[in-house]
Amino acid sequence: MLTRRTFLTTSALLAGGALLAPLNGRQQPASAGAVDPKLIEDLVAAYRVLAQHEVLDGFGHVSVRHDRSASRFILSRSLAPELVTAGDLIEFDLDGNAVDARGRALYSERFIHAEIYRARPDVKAVVHAHAPSLIPFGVTGVPLLPVYHMASFIGDGVPIFDIRKAFGATDMLVSDAAKGRALAQTLGVKTCVLMRGHGIAVVGSTIPIVVGRSIYLDVNAQIQTQAMTLGAGKVTYLDPQEAQKVMEAGENRGYERAWELWKAKASRP
Amino acid sequence: MLTRRTFLTTSALLAGGALLAPLNGRQQPASAGAVDPKLIEDLVAAYRVLAQHEVLDGFGHVSVRHDRSASRFILSRSLAPELVTAGDLIEFDLDGNAVDARGRALYSERFIHAEIYRARPDVKAVVHAHAPSLIPFGVTGVPLLPVYHMASFIGDGVPIFDIRKAFGATDMLVSDAAKGRALAQTLGVKTCVLMRGHGIAVVGSTIPIVVGRSIYLDVNAQIQTQAMTLGAGKVTYLDPQEAQKVMEAGENRGYERAWELWKAKASRP
Amino acid sequence: MLTRRTFLTTSALLAGGALLAPLNGRQQPASAGAVDPKLIEDLVAAYRVLAQHEVLDGFGHVSVRHDRSASRFILSRSLAPELVTAGDLIEFDLDGNAVDARGRALYSERFIHAEIYRARPDVKAVVHAHAPSLIPFGVTGVPLLPVYHMASFIGDGVPIFDIRKAFGATDMLVSDAAKGRALAQTLGVKTCVLMRGHGIAVVGSTIPIVVGRSIYLDVNAQIQTQAMTLGAGKVTYLDPQEAQKVMEAGENRGYERAWELWKAKASRP
Amino acid sequence: MLTRRTFLTTSALLAGGALLAPLNGRQQPASAGAVDPKLIEDLVAAYRVLAQHEVLDGFGHVSVRHDRSASRFILSRSLAPELVTAGDLIEFDLDGNAVDARGRALYSERFIHAEIYRARPDVKAVVHAHAPSLIPFGVTGVPLLPVYHMASFIGDGVPIFDIRKAFGATDMLVSDAAKGRALAQTLGVKTCVLMRGHGIAVVGSTIPIVVGRSIYLDVNAQIQTQAMTLGAGKVTYLDPQEAQKVMEAGENRGYERAWELWKAKASRP
Repeated sequence: MLTRRTFLTTSALLAGGALLAPLNGRQQPASAGAVDPKLIEDLVAAYRVLAQHEVLDGFGHVSVRHDRSASRFILSRSLAPELVTAGDLIEFDLDGNAVDARGRALYSERFIHAEIYRARPDVKAVVHAHAPSLIPFGVTGVPLLPVYHMASFIGDGVPIFDIRKAFGATDMLVSDAAKGRALAQTLGVKTCVLMRGHGIAVVGSTIPIVVGRSIYLDVNAQIQTQAMTLGAGKVTYLDPQEAQKVMEAGENRGYERAWELWKAKASRP
Repeated sequence: MLTRRTFLTTSALLAGGALLAPLNGRQQPASAGAVDPKLIEDLVAAYRVLAQHEVLDGFGHVSVRHDRSASRFILSRSLAPELVTAGDLIEFDLDGNAVDARGRALYSERFIHAEIYRARPDVKAVVHAHAPSLIPFGVTGVPLLPVYHMASFIGDGVPIFDIRKAFGATDMLVSDAAKGRALAQTLGVKTCVLMRGHGIAVVGSTIPIVVGRSIYLDVNAQIQTQAMTLGAGKVTYLDPQEAQKVMEAGENRGYERAWELWKAKASRP
Repeated sequence: MLTRRTFLTTSALLAGGALLAPLNGRQQPASAGAVDPKLIEDLVAAYRVLAQHEVLDGFGHVSVRHDRSASRFILSRSLAPELVTAGDLIEFDLDGNAVDARGRALYSERFIHAEIYRARPDVKAVVHAHAPSLIPFGVTGVPLLPVYHMASFIGDGVPIFDIRKAFGATDMLVSDAAKGRALAQTLGVKTCVLMRGHGIAVVGSTIPIVVGRSIYLDVNAQIQTQAMTLGAGKVTYLDPQEAQKVMEAGENRGYERAWELWKAKASRP
Repeated sequence: MLTRRTFLTTSALLAGGALLAPLNGRQQPASAGAVDPKLIEDLVAAYRVLAQHEVLDGFGHVSVRHDRSASRFILSRSLAPELVTAGDLIEFDLDGNAVDARGRALYSERFIHAEIYRARPDVKAVVHAHAPSLIPFGVTGVPLLPVYHMASFIGDGVPIFDIRKAFGATDMLVSDAAKGRALAQTLGVKTCVLMRGHGIAVVGSTIPIVVGRSIYLDVNAQIQTQAMTLGAGKVTYLDPQEAQKVMEAGENRGYERAWELWKAKASRP
């Protein structure tokens, strides 16, 4: 594992260096300036927390909206989540253009993040993952539902994005703005959207919330699968009113108690 | 992980310092005095053992009744179980009031513990957990039964607490005395109670017993789920008489053999 | 974990010291002399290998027949498997009497080992475990069968011991010679015997073989459960002739390749 | 675990020393010369990556075709995958003869590799494994299909090799050239072939690709099993056209992003 020192490596983003990047063309937008160091630290931790919980493996990514500009977000260069450090983070605009890529490869699916940030001003953080427990709910017609209070954030249901509907046979990737827009449209006002034969996109108003939702979405999917097997399909889910009450009471208290633990473990050598 | 030194950090409870806490109002009851150091050590170990066995994750808690007063119990401040040290433990009365909170956040569900201790003089330790294997048995109508001798402590059955019955649509939490009383009433004289769409509460006469029961309840749930799938629902459970004989013979010998191992692993850096 | 030094601690058995133990009564038989140090080393490793593979947890045990006397075998004192070192090993006769217990607590189920060694001269090592994957096959009437070549040693089937048949309602433990004899009788000439609502006993002609069989029995049970679910019960098992050919070819080559790895990992600090 | 130093131990193959080995008979073919050091490093990493992902356990193996000669390939001596270092690698010809065995035991199933390399000039790397998730698909008649984009490489289907068809009752091992040829024939132009009651053989044009395919074949099998249970058999798989588009777009980009992570973890002490 990375040492704590590597983990805390400062990035150009943190130092505000990106501000100085020359604007060489329309592909390189201006930076919105230095990012809140706390967001950088939390974003790096989020990559590792989600890898440690096996929500992400060698693929998938997490981003945060820039705290100084609603039209910028921060995402890693193309890299396996567990290896991401602050130095790998890049600022993007909502067209998916990097402020200062310096030749580094980019995630082809950065449009998932860009278009969700464009469509949903309330969203400050986005996760895209291929968690194995969730794939079956995108390919069987069985709705993913909250089997316990920790998953109350899906009390309003989880929509399914089938890329085939609007784009025919593709390589399944949300690799341009049009596909990102279609995904964001299917997401609507919900907290997450299943992607048929591919994975999930989860959103939240903070990094701890989007990480917490991703982790408990995975746990809930595992429990629901077991419950449906055990009960031959007859399962009592959380009542929509109950789910709403949990959300009103603060949705697992913002996952703060768990986030403290997760972040501590992510920074261990 | 925490070092062994941190793990053994003495607490105010251990030193008896809590005795000196001023009684500033009705929310701050008097302390029953210093707690047996062995109980403190075992309670801290219990938090970590249950986290290592994934019975607890970032949420859930375990408590022990004060050895000097039946009307006091010890529980951590609001903290993820794996991070709990002796310094985080707080003494409570049976109304869920902290003797000396010193501004620290408290678990909102401490009433689970308080009301069970009030209702059950034989209970000396309580666990509240959201173990994924157990949730399905609270939402499917399939009774949790002892599929092997290690789970003989549920030979008399496991009642299910549905918070909706007495309290309507809630945020699912047992966050006041009335809800705690209702839960304790459903528990009755049993060793544990499932909470629909939420989790479990487990009780015991010692910390090793409540930890052992929590761990083997989880294992038994996993085995039962597999057995019901394999046998298309036809499973031979332990005969009630057999379960009783196991209990009479000393219920897995008080889990002492396993507890020695679990505690050793919990104290490793 | 234990350090390598602790792991190799010499025992009285190894030094032959047990030979000097006074014969104070009929409960203390004479020792057969010092045990082959290689057997001691392998037996200690076996406890840890089986714990690392989760075939054993805080309970269960493994023994080896004494290399100098067919009427003696070596088993740990009552201790969680992962903690066993050479100094914890005790010599027993086939009535389950310890040569030199020195007041140490003994496993109450040592009669599983004693009576199998008595009934089966070909058996040199015995494992008793509660592996979760195996319990369902003892309580559902679904026969455990070899779903792949690594489990060819059950090509002749796995008998099920139901302690209730001969002993009525018990605490489920094989805690005396009569119960041990009944178990050995059900085992017959097979390689293992399921114990209804309890676990398994596995036998072999060497420590690596009994450990390898225990591990692959567990893996085979997991695969078979998945296969039966996937195939709605229709599964093509190894043909008895195929299983026999694997056994004739040397049964996974005595597990030597895997044993080298397992033992190396067991001795890591 | 092995230290990084051990992990990078140079081998005779790397130094080209094998070139000097005397040709003592028809069992000892000439070497094709020193192997590209990058291939050696990647092959050693592959053994450990597949063990860390539990695709291999104490058995199974992975090989690479020699970069200087299409009629030579590199495979470990008979050894558990997790223990393999560069010094254990041996050069073989396509008849399964070792260039310089120096008395070391060989995998009896090296003919899987030899005959696939002979039949498939496009194949540069081969894995043989007994991954538990895959066995059920070889014994139930349920076809293994791509449930998500990461498994697009099986969009053309996975053939099943039943050794019984051409060879009757055997010990299940592909332990000679005739059996290897039959397996290669069943594989045909596909990316992998299930072996009934035994395991899988996977092929690829690079080591990262054959490792990536092995890992995601295992994940896909687990997801498909869950999806079929959840959906009572009704599952929407990747459309063949979609799978083809993923392959044309570069099949998970050659697994490069994941391979960087996997190799980094494999070289950690």
